[in-house]
Amino acid sequence: MSVLDELTASLPDGVVVTDPVLTDKYRFDRAADPGAGTPLAVVRAMSTEQVQTALRWASEHRVAVVPRGAGTGLSGGSTALTGGIVLSTERMRDIAIDRLSRVAVVQPGLLNAEVKQAAAEAGLWYPPDPSSFEICSIGGNVATNAGGLCCVKYGVTSDYVLALEVVLADGRALRLGGPRLKDSAGLSLTKLFVGSEGTLGVVTEVTLRLMPPQPPPRTVVATFADTHAATEAIVAITSTLRPAMLEYMDRTTVNAVEDHLRMGLDRSAAALIVARTDTEGSTADRELAQMVAAFERCGAGEVVSTDDPAEGEAFTLARRQAIPAMEKKGKLLLEDVGVAVPRLPALVSGIEAIAAARDVTIALIAHAGDGNTHPLIVFDPADARAAQRAQTAFGEVMDLAIELDGTITGEHGVGRLKQPWLAAQVGDDVIDLSRRIKAAIDPLGIMNPGAVL
Amino acid sequence: MSVLDELTASLPDGVVVTDPVLTDKYRFDRAADPGAGTPLAVVRAMSTEQVQTALRWASEHRVAVVPRGAGTGLSGGSTALTGGIVLSTERMRDIAIDRLSRVAVVQPGLLNAEVKQAAAEAGLWYPPDPSSFEICSIGGNVATNAGGLCCVKYGVTSDYVLALEVVLADGRALRLGGPRLKDSAGLSLTKLFVGSEGTLGVVTEVTLRLMPPQPPPRTVVATFADTHAATEAIVAITSTLRPAMLEYMDRTTVNAVEDHLRMGLDRSAAALIVARTDTEGSTADRELAQMVAAFERCGAGEVVSTDDPAEGEAFTLARRQAIPAMEKKGKLLLEDVGVAVPRLPALVSGIEAIAAARDVTIALIAHAGDGNTHPLIVFDPADARAAQRAQTAFGEVMDLAIELDGTITGEHGVGRLKQPWLAAQVGDDVIDLSRRIKAAIDPLGIMNPGAVL
Repeated sequence: MSVLDELTASLPDGVVVTDPVLTDKYRFDRAADPGAGTPLAVVRAMSTEQVQTALRWASEHRVAVVPRGAGTGLSGGSTALTGGIVLSTERMRDIAIDRLSRVAVVQPGLLNAEVKQAAAEAGLWYPPDPSSFEICSIGGNVATNAGGLCCVKYGVTSDYVLALEVVLADGRALRLGGPRLKDSAGLSLTKLFVGSEGTLGVVTEVTLRLMPPQPPPRTVVATFADTHAATEAIVAITSTLRPAMLEYMDRTTVNAVEDHLRMGLDRSAAALIVARTDTEGSTADRELAQMVAAFERCGAGEVVSTDDPAEGEAFTLARRQAIPAMEKKGKLLLEDVGVAVPRLPALVSGIEAIAAARDVTIALIAHAGDGNTHPLIVFDPADARAAQRAQTAFGEVMDLAIELDGTITGEHGVGRLKQPWLAAQVGDDVIDLSRRIKAAIDPLGIMNPGAVL
Repeated sequence: MSVLDELTASLPDGVVVTDPVLTDKYRFDRAADPGAGTPLAVVRAMSTEQVQTALRWASEHRVAVVPRGAGTGLSGGSTALTGGIVLSTERMRDIAIDRLSRVAVVQPGLLNAEVKQAAAEAGLWYPPDPSSFEICSIGGNVATNAGGLCCVKYGVTSDYVLALEVVLADGRALRLGGPRLKDSAGLSLTKLFVGSEGTLGVVTEVTLRLMPPQPPPRTVVATFADTHAATEAIVAITSTLRPAMLEYMDRTTVNAVEDHLRMGLDRSAAALIVARTDTEGSTADRELAQMVAAFERCGAGEVVSTDDPAEGEAFTLARRQAIPAMEKKGKLLLEDVGVAVPRLPALVSGIEAIAAARDVTIALIAHAGDGNTHPLIVFDPADARAAQRAQTAFGEVMDLAIELDGTITGEHGVGRLKQPWLAAQVGDDVIDLSRRIKAAIDPLGIMNPGAVL
């Protein structure tokens, strides 16, 4: 019996998939890492016990394990490795909601939108909202510490994770944290596992804090004739109030979205900002007035407010569709760089300078209110020199973020594509410490090798 | 030259203190651990470099290091060890605030109240508010992941720490995180160090997220003739809205505070709840009405609302003075147990049963809105049998919390006094994993040995 047959025999039929037609779909995540390998097998686990079985086998035979949620990762964290297995949690999809504690216990394969939906049916709200929320899994959200549009006021995935069940490389299943809102008992292992991108173990259950429903938002949209004025308006707003959303799109993305959705966006604007408050009554009036005043003071062209949630939602949809719309324009290198908000103007103008110097198109969208931008480098993959220039610009954008005391990734994770830049951001001592922690948890180094560290 | 002389010679005059009259003050924190030892010396560092010098020396000579902030810890996390040094950060007190980024960069010795004050002077707000905020240091808050009264809406210390400078046992100084609101770059070491109680290294600088000022709160106070009804009201409120404060005091604490402050509290009430909203206008009206309705539905005696911030603050002060007021009644064993809010009624009635069975007085105050209670076991230290019964009850309260899927500490930390109960809460595998992580960071085991693990 081969080593792989041993694994297949130890799990129910259909869990271990080796047919290349099927396994090929698990080679790449949305980052389409050109270095993707061909996995030995894909394990589509249906339970914690099956994950344990797979990891015990992997430890015994020192086989690399790439954990995978919905495969929507943007940094190559789920790129398959030749000779390794892909451990997919897509079939682990249970959810239980406790209304009184405002807590959801979720398996990792459930999509973010399905968690939101289940919460809404219980009269509650799960805030984190990556733009890909309809197709990304909650397990992947935990692995990357995913963010989204409402994070500027409501925080990221880590802020909602009260507890995890994780399976370690050696097959042990551990419960970290619990359904308590406050807990200072021992090292914060729950927080350590959030954002660890499958390098420490496999998340098999997540306990999420839920919120009472969000009040109906009020939206204000502003256009700007130059990007610097737009980013100055962002700084003016965030230094005095906490909007429920503060999103930015530049001309290239506005036009791509308009090509895609035909919703009547102003194609001539250099930048468009979508801002929201979800406060109520006089507070909302005051916050909207403050935002409008900041836009006008910074020289906005058009400023439009709406109390109609549907109209406000249309602008949010436009923002959410920016990446799919840009994907129609060519091959993308997706960045996720972030800085302290006052450095946003310098980051945006620096990115424009890189685009000019390297003769590449860099479309820019941003969760501007928390300084997290997504420069999208778009190029024709058939043009080798353009692809090379895009790759150079990709690195230079991260170098710029690091120079501005920023981060190479705000919410997508390091994966494999940004791994070469991590040390420049955090320093060799932090890399060394991270490696020592990784080795303490995964001594054989089988968990997602090559990702992050 | 003795080993200690070597340390003294390597640091400026006055940094290394060996005079027993002075060092005696550093043997205990507020937990008054009877097992406290006599330290070799107290190092009152004034800079990161001095902390590095001390830790390099401690590593070289394998001397245990007990980091210490203001010494207000309630779990014995800063109990001195015979043959070890106490490393005090009380003299590291700089702060710099950046208004535009809403960030404070603070040295660990600054008091929580001083951080709040500096933030307020910049027109900003630092939310975490332990009852001891006027005497506890921000470094200690980070070490224990301290909470407070506003956490029910605004989260705990960890939610505000964007970055840390830490000195490891080997003397290396590392920067973890940065002044970015979102950051998925590498393992979340910042979050791992928060709450690690000095077992992983010494925090020498903290970067804190600040908020726009809190709107003026509106307060509602309710009294109850029985504690069960009061805790049911807590559950009713937290399952539907997010108050800015939801505090609980039982009859024993109400009477102790009344003895102390003479402010006219109802001494006959079995329980008193102080609730707050800091929303504005019609939202505040709605939330106050919901809270009043919940109190009345659960059978409250008196329910009093006030829009006067000073009057509301008087009730908050009463709650904050509960521990000092109880300290006048005898020796205290301070608990910090927490559960999911729906289990609060079971926790409170279980604690009452333990008090009755062991014939000890257990006063109970609680950050009830997040299920975090402080049972205060009060006894006459001169009565050996009473002290023994108190000690038994102390353990039984933690056993009860664990049985209810709760935590032995919500915000005070494990320290030395709760260390024997940690494994029962988190399990042997989590203890093993925590020890491996600790060993990866502090291989010689010199950082606060005996605390937590």
